[in-house]
Amino acid sequence: MAKSADIYYKVHPWKIIEKGFNKDYARVSESVFSLGNEYMGTRGYFEEGYSGDSLIGNYFNGIYEAAELEKSGYKGIIDRTEFIVNSADWLYTRIEADGEAADLNTAAFRDFERVLDLKSGILTRSYTWVLKSGKKLRLEFERFLSMKEAEIAVQRIKITPVDFSGEITLYSGIDFTQIHHMTGNCMWNVTEAASEDNAISLLGNTVSTDQSLLVSCLFQCDCEEKTDYKEEKKLVRKFLLSGEEGKTAEFTKIIRNISRKGTGYREKEEFQKKCRENSQVLKSLSYEKLREDTLSWWEETWRDSDIAIEGDELNQQGIRYCIFQMHQTYHGADKGTIIGAKGLTGEAYSGNTFWDTEAYCLPFYIFNNTEAARHLLEFRYLTLPEAMERAKALDCKGAFYPIATITGRECCSLWQHASLQLQASTAVAYGFWHYENITGDEEFIFEKGLPILIELSRMLASRGDWSADQTRYGFYGVMGPDEFQMMVNNNCYTNYLGKKTLEYTLEVLQRCAGKDPAGYQEIRKERNLTAEEIGFFRNIAEHMYIPYDEETGIFEQHEGYFNLPHVDINKIPIAEFPLYHHWTYDRIYRNDMLKQPDVLMMMLLYNRDFTEEQLKNNYEYYEPRCIHESSLSPSVHSILASQLRKEEEAYKFFGFATRMDLDNYNRNTGEGLHTTSIAAAWMNIVYGFGGMRSDGKELSFAPSLPEEWKGYSFKVHFKEDVILTSVDEAGIKISSRKGSGIQVLIYGKPYTLGQEELVIPITR
Amino acid sequence: MAKSADIYYKVHPWKIIEKGFNKDYARVSESVFSLGNEYMGTRGYFEEGYSGDSLIGNYFNGIYEAAELEKSGYKGIIDRTEFIVNSADWLYTRIEADGEAADLNTAAFRDFERVLDLKSGILTRSYTWVLKSGKKLRLEFERFLSMKEAEIAVQRIKITPVDFSGEITLYSGIDFTQIHHMTGNCMWNVTEAASEDNAISLLGNTVSTDQSLLVSCLFQCDCEEKTDYKEEKKLVRKFLLSGEEGKTAEFTKIIRNISRKGTGYREKEEFQKKCRENSQVLKSLSYEKLREDTLSWWEETWRDSDIAIEGDELNQQGIRYCIFQMHQTYHGADKGTIIGAKGLTGEAYSGNTFWDTEAYCLPFYIFNNTEAARHLLEFRYLTLPEAMERAKALDCKGAFYPIATITGRECCSLWQHASLQLQASTAVAYGFWHYENITGDEEFIFEKGLPILIELSRMLASRGDWSADQTRYGFYGVMGPDEFQMMVNNNCYTNYLGKKTLEYTLEVLQRCAGKDPAGYQEIRKERNLTAEEIGFFRNIAEHMYIPYDEETGIFEQHEGYFNLPHVDINKIPIAEFPLYHHWTYDRIYRNDMLKQPDVLMMMLLYNRDFTEEQLKNNYEYYEPRCIHESSLSPSVHSILASQLRKEEEAYKFFGFATRMDLDNYNRNTGEGLHTTSIAAAWMNIVYGFGGMRSDGKELSFAPSLPEEWKGYSFKVHFKEDVILTSVDEAGIKISSRKGSGIQVLIYGKPYTLGQEELVIPITR
Repeated sequence: MAKSADIYYKVHPWKIIEKGFNKDYARVSESVFSLGNEYMGTRGYFEEGYSGDSLIGNYFNGIYEAAELEKSGYKGIIDRTEFIVNSADWLYTRIEADGEAADLNTAAFRDFERVLDLKSGILTRSYTWVLKSGKKLRLEFERFLSMKEAEIAVQRIKITPVDFSGEITLYSGIDFTQIHHMTGNCMWNVTEAASEDNAISLLGNTVSTDQSLLVSCLFQCDCEEKTDYKEEKKLVRKFLLSGEEGKTAEFTKIIRNISRKGTGYREKEEFQKKCRENSQVLKSLSYEKLREDTLSWWEETWRDSDIAIEGDELNQQGIRYCIFQMHQTYHGADKGTIIGAKGLTGEAYSGNTFWDTEAYCLPFYIFNNTEAARHLLEFRYLTLPEAMERAKALDCKGAFYPIATITGRECCSLWQHASLQLQASTAVAYGFWHYENITGDEEFIFEKGLPILIELSRMLASRGDWSADQTRYGFYGVMGPDEFQMMVNNNCYTNYLGKKTLEYTLEVLQRCAGKDPAGYQEIRKERNLTAEEIGFFRNIAEHMYIPYDEETGIFEQHEGYFNLPHVDINKIPIAEFPLYHHWTYDRIYRNDMLKQPDVLMMMLLYNRDFTEEQLKNNYEYYEPRCIHESSLSPSVHSILASQLRKEEEAYKFFGFATRMDLDNYNRNTGEGLHTTSIAAAWMNIVYGFGGMRSDGKELSFAPSLPEEWKGYSFKVHFKEDVILTSVDEAGIKISSRKGSGIQVLIYGKPYTLGQEELVIPITR
Repeated sequence: MAKSADIYYKVHPWKIIEKGFNKDYARVSESVFSLGNEYMGTRGYFEEGYSGDSLIGNYFNGIYEAAELEKSGYKGIIDRTEFIVNSADWLYTRIEADGEAADLNTAAFRDFERVLDLKSGILTRSYTWVLKSGKKLRLEFERFLSMKEAEIAVQRIKITPVDFSGEITLYSGIDFTQIHHMTGNCMWNVTEAASEDNAISLLGNTVSTDQSLLVSCLFQCDCEEKTDYKEEKKLVRKFLLSGEEGKTAEFTKIIRNISRKGTGYREKEEFQKKCRENSQVLKSLSYEKLREDTLSWWEETWRDSDIAIEGDELNQQGIRYCIFQMHQTYHGADKGTIIGAKGLTGEAYSGNTFWDTEAYCLPFYIFNNTEAARHLLEFRYLTLPEAMERAKALDCKGAFYPIATITGRECCSLWQHASLQLQASTAVAYGFWHYENITGDEEFIFEKGLPILIELSRMLASRGDWSADQTRYGFYGVMGPDEFQMMVNNNCYTNYLGKKTLEYTLEVLQRCAGKDPAGYQEIRKERNLTAEEIGFFRNIAEHMYIPYDEETGIFEQHEGYFNLPHVDINKIPIAEFPLYHHWTYDRIYRNDMLKQPDVLMMMLLYNRDFTEEQLKNNYEYYEPRCIHESSLSPSVHSILASQLRKEEEAYKFFGFATRMDLDNYNRNTGEGLHTTSIAAAWMNIVYGFGGMRSDGKELSFAPSLPEEWKGYSFKVHFKEDVILTSVDEAGIKISSRKGSGIQVLIYGKPYTLGQEELVIPITR
């Protein structure tokens, strides 16, 4: 895989610790120490200013800018794209003493430490700043985002003159001058500013999309307060601290960020009213209460979400970091928000959301936060109109979900992906199906799933076609999740997921007809769904071509794949990775090499549809052909290797996901975290070693214990209850918190879970 | 085919006549009345100024500008493209009387007539201009390009006040302000200007490529001469004519245009020296002599190039127009110049040359002007280094010829074409092979063909691959000439042409070893060609996979083509053409529809490799699947239909090519002529109805006589002699001008041609 760990942070079960500051790691640490609360995200940058390499990034879910693209002249190829926009630096701070500025790039310092506490969500940083005269100042920074009031963030700074007394100047404010690094331009116009007694506000509007961000700050400081400096797009208050040797001065800034996805505050009066409201809200808050609320939120979250690993400190830290980031990124605060490929930690992938959301992230939320899972699906419901527009643009009926999006519109400018990949659409159907299978939330499916399912089936019925002899239905000119086979016919994954989508649609329709006849008639009328069309869905589902070699038991990734030239991937020199940078674009697509697995992914998603022998045949055929250029790939292999009792391989493929970003495996963590890979890390343990499967009538488990571990435990939410599982040499201990009588399969045998632990020996 | 004729010009066997001026046809006529002489081309615009829709276009072979493209971030995708650049209007004229300007868009006029005389290459235009006062002025314009001195052009204007006497002002000059329409910018900086007694000069340099154009004009006019007006990028001389009722004033401008492909004239002195030289050259020329020279050039050319058709005035005019344009576009004036897709008649396709040059144009020159044919191939020799660079960029060895080019560098920014289409490369090999087969010019092949063939074979040996079972060699991830099957494996045309290229390389190597052992050793050393590599060429040629169904006798266009969904092309509504404008980009590529024929093209190029039964099977299978979105497609079908004695179909497909531009079939002649389609028109008669085949040891003929015609005759150059063929109901009359003893096959039987006509009955 040509990936190797770059271990930099200290190992700790609950903390990410940076001791001493390595400038080469500045951007990586900014990403790693990112905070988020679904509503907003802020990178772990040095708020006091840093003249070295840095990406000061602050992002708000759904706040985007747009760019016009060169017109291709061809139909269906987009000419406008949207991207999450870097917004105001609301942590803006400058500290001066003796005419010198605190800047870790140029100043002398000692005892640097940065710590992210996963238990509390609080990020702290401290160092001793040595002035040119030799005088020392101790600086301590703390920040956190409220997990209860999404708009609220807190910053606290403590300043202690170690060995002198003298005046210290502190500037604190709001800075809208930050550029969006991808474009090199600042994407904000600042239209209004307000100064109050101990508060300031600044209003920014995005340059072309007319969205707004109103930042209000309340200052708490025992010091002389000075006039404000208003520069272009910046409002800063100057504070003079009379520093006393050995005495710590404390400065607190409570921030309220109000982002508006619709039209921003156009009227001055509206702005002023909102500022007054903000001040009142801010004044009602206290640092202590906010801290306490957030701590208790995390405490509660960890109680039912933790994964503990005994005997593997690195992965223990890694998996907790992953779980922490998953909850930070999304937790059901708002309907219709999304999970960008980098969460809210960077600009890469333009903050767009991909099919990974339903395929990799949704399982985490289904088993940790049902409301969050439902909210994710809600985004697809809210953007059904855009998906229907997109289908039209592609000469299809129904709904074609975008490969990459923020608002529901297609943002991927590479036609070969945007037009040929159907997995975003089928993943939506899979997501609804998976969600219903676990939650039993039929009402949600009837109301918000069914309209989507009908339109998805329509798309499939117009995008696909019959083979020349009219006997087989399938999809031509497609790209599966494996992007190394670019434009193929009858991709196995695409056809199979298409078939599953159609079947689920038919099944839900039938169920709805039986349980809610009026609703059924209504939706059929609303969607103009005829019996003839339903019949056509059934017909193509039945005739869907699934390429499969009966003799070898191997699914053919696509028609003709078995005849492709073979590449021995072990003979590719490490220096040629990543291949996209070293191989000619088209060369990647001319052989049997895979970027990530298609057939194996299908066999994971619908695991029970296949025998273990089939799985074995296919795993052994495809695994040696996969180079894992996608960060999602190793986890899928690890999970299936576990199922096949290939313990060594399972553990080999496991390592990447949990520490992908902490160890900067792909050497691009500086651009932002691999959020969807983080989701796969959770699956890797629960679906992998825990052997959980969620695609059948009951949840099933088939745990194994990696040789390298003493034991591990994990928890999954299930219908108002929580299943508690721990595994060690003595066997599996499994129970449920409430003892609500959950039926599960363990190694294929049925059990009912109570509050008392069942103990079952590991059977492999 | 959804194409229909739009007949506008008067029918005449030797002339293109426009009677009365239709503004809607302004741009089309500018293209149709284009003049060219390989070195330069000028559209048929109104030199006296026209405020209506117009593309004032003047192009010089090889004079180009470049544009930076958005970087794709992928290897092998170009980030810079080149395009022929619109240059100075050296015919610039303005005519004023009574304070009014002659402008056919706004002025009143009568008796407009524009005539292109194909026999002489002279374009004339005349009309009576009616002033607001009712006074009438008769204006007559004449222009031609010298076919002997490529840099020379001539303009003559006659002005006759019909019913009044009074001063007339005439402005004449050089105008570098013309924009390049594709970019909307003027691509020239003017750096030097010079005025002499009766001459002016202006020097332009291209803005970024540092090429130059020096225009010098000599004026001959019996009138009062006035000062020059120098505006930015423009130099104009004003002439006052004392108009006398009924008396014709004559104004002549002789132009010398010197284009420099390398660095332009940088030094003032160099410029001045060149201007003096120009003046001397111009002064040595006379209108009468230039006219006479050009007339005699055309007379000689027509003597051995004419195709006469009896009983079909429209196609008679059409085919002579085509032959005229072919000679205008290219005639061997210079080595290394190219034939752009639009010749020198417009900006579309950026003036780039494509594989059409070797596949469609080269046959015309092989049989009409051997030197021109050799010069075309010389371009590929001169640009072998660029093709080797391109191969490297595509991770291949050897030489990969560009899909679209001016200087030898790839200019096609669509990676799917530039990286996947191998037919530009194999067409180069085909071109050399075809040229040698007819001319027997072995020396040229050994010297300039062999280095190319070796590098082409190397490219094929690195771009292709072995099937999974290692038994078959082929090309994966390619697009054949039929661009509706975008990214396929083992395209039959590509594999077959690849095989032929390798075989020809091996054959020439062997021949060279026998006839020129020293030269053979030298080239092997120079190219570092080992016996092992030669062995590999042989091995892959032998194992090249040619997809073929033994049962039906049909070649499969590519692996898997037979299973593709079928589209009944007759059911596509006419309103949906052209498909690129009405269908989603990827939708075009998901079925068995063809844009132009692949397999049939292969069967035309190597006609004798296939039995007539094979041809019949394949024609009948593929013809109903082809929508002829390429203007080259109908001729190929017509030629093969003739061979199969499908007389009606042959005639149906024939009509488009000869009058493609005269009748504006594709509704885009305004952008420039379809030069390569014009070449196909010639093939359509000589290879089609004449049944000539040039891919065997002897030339062969199998003429037929379309029902619609009384008779026809054509001439082909063959090894210093000319074969004269005429066909009518009485049979075929065939002879050779010099009686040099040419051996031919007629209906498969051998004959030796003498000066006396052989008469053979039509056998079909």
